Amino acid sequence: MKKCRYAALSTAVLILATLAALPTAVASESESHSDPTTYQDREVLFQVSTIDALLLAVYDGILPVGELKARGDFGIGTFDKLEGEMVVVDGVCYQVKVDGVAYVVSDDATTPFATVTFFDPDETVLVEKAENMTELGEIVEASFPSENVFYAVRIDGTFPYVRTRSVPAQEKPYPHLVDAVANQTVFEFEDASGTVVGFWSPEFVDGINVPGYHLHFITDDRTAGGHILDLRVEGAEVELDLTPNIFMALPTAGDFFSVDLTRDLSSDLEKVEK
Amino acid sequence: MKKCRYAALSTAVLILATLAALPTAVASESESHSDPTTYQDREVLFQVSTIDALLLAVYDGILPVGELKARGDFGIGTFDKLEGEMVVVDGVCYQVKVDGVAYVVSDDATTPFATVTFFDPDETVLVEKAENMTELGEIVEASFPSENVFYAVRIDGTFPYVRTRSVPAQEKPYPHLVDAVANQTVFEFEDASGTVVGFWSPEFVDGINVPGYHLHFITDDRTAGGHILDLRVEGAEVELDLTPNIFMALPTAGDFFSVDLTRDLSSDLEKVEK
Repeated sequence: MKKCRYAALSTAVLILATLAALPTAVASESESHSDPTTYQDREVLFQVSTIDALLLAVYDGILPVGELKARGDFGIGTFDKLEGEMVVVDGVCYQVKVDGVAYVVSDDATTPFATVTFFDPDETVLVEKAENMTELGEIVEASFPSENVFYAVRIDGTFPYVRTRSVPAQEKPYPHLVDAVANQTVFEFEDASGTVVGFWSPEFVDGINVPGYHLHFITDDRTAGGHILDLRVEGAEVELDLTPNIFMALPTAGDFFSVDLTRDLSSDLEKVEK
Repeated sequence: MKKCRYAALSTAVLILATLAALPTAVASESESHSDPTTYQDREVLFQVSTIDALLLAVYDGILPVGELKARGDFGIGTFDKLEGEMVVVDGVCYQVKVDGVAYVVSDDATTPFATVTFFDPDETVLVEKAENMTELGEIVEASFPSENVFYAVRIDGTFPYVRTRSVPAQEKPYPHLVDAVANQTVFEFEDASGTVVGFWSPEFVDGINVPGYHLHFITDDRTAGGHILDLRVEGAEVELDLTPNIFMALPTAGDFFSVDLTRDLSSDLEKVEK
């Protein structure tokens, strides 16, 4: 495991002083979501392939980034050959490669696995302090109106500490994801201004997407980032977009068709995510 | 368990003589499905809620049938209060109640759980003979190009034997599905002309929809039917619509929000389906 250290630019914490005392505060959404046909375009988590297919080395890109961006302006994923970490934020798609640099991605690049939505925050949770991802996660989860829907999660701010990773392009025959991440490069950011981008998914999507949190990071100047392994936050303003619909587009060619998706891969997922 | 017997009208088996000798024959689809954005309207399995929520008594209707029909002309499900079995075929929605009669449903009736798509068959499998659902299922599965996508399944023909059931409307506090079906009414059809309507879903949707087959039946004159418990076929022409996308619309109000969907309910599902 290689390690790089980023001396990221620090900026003043942007949290409003009036909100700083609250560990959590929820402004719950006012719209009714009882009619899925009227809000489908924006209130849909759009997903390519399944996480278990990715765990089992189905890495060939099958959807162009241009088409992915038509389904959401916000999200995460990876690229053809598992090359790097995807961050889609404010409609721009970035690829954080193993050199630690975030590159803007052309529309004809492809992805084997990604999740995007249009980010329309429904509520904001203020987290005064969390020492690590687990603590942050628990505080934010406590504000969820339900654990049976999806949440897009966005945090803009300055983070005392973020640890991320990226993974190099793989060669065929592709190794399983648990082996591919053994060659990951780890990055550490201190007092880094940036954006956390990702999702919280319910337990019942086990095998399909990542239950719980799956978050990526990109710096404020959009030059570096990666898949978040851990982070520390102070005065974080966590925006949540409750998303009650999921559209899953499965590959209809290539390795996906024949891979055995009947096994329980949750222990592999645990190793890969953390 | 009540039992009724239908003396259904028998018509000649419609299988072409030239095809009768084949246990299975597949005309594989020619279109490419690599671009999910261009065929999304018709090649999507649209689902309301999850099967585990239904198993745990989330029976209040949340989507009007009129809106469901906008997402598919073919499918199955149930209705508000778990009243009866839904069959959507050729764009018409029927409700098979416990009196055994199939009623045309108005657009303002609601469903707590349903699955529909637009039926565009990609291949036809000819099954010379199958003594029961298990045998039929195995023959048809052997023709699947992949077990990692969905198939809408339609069989028009005359069936030597079909056993179906329907379930009465439930009262609050709703019992779990496994208890509600203890009051099911069972119907038997012999030499019945009709249509089998349903889906085959991959194992990885466990908890979300029914892995494997989930089939309903409606007679040719659209007057009776139900959820299929078993059937016998001779010379059946099984039409399959390979469906690589799923859109899941989750309820955002009512019991769904608080129900515990983290348990493994596969043994309940086994009891309920068979």
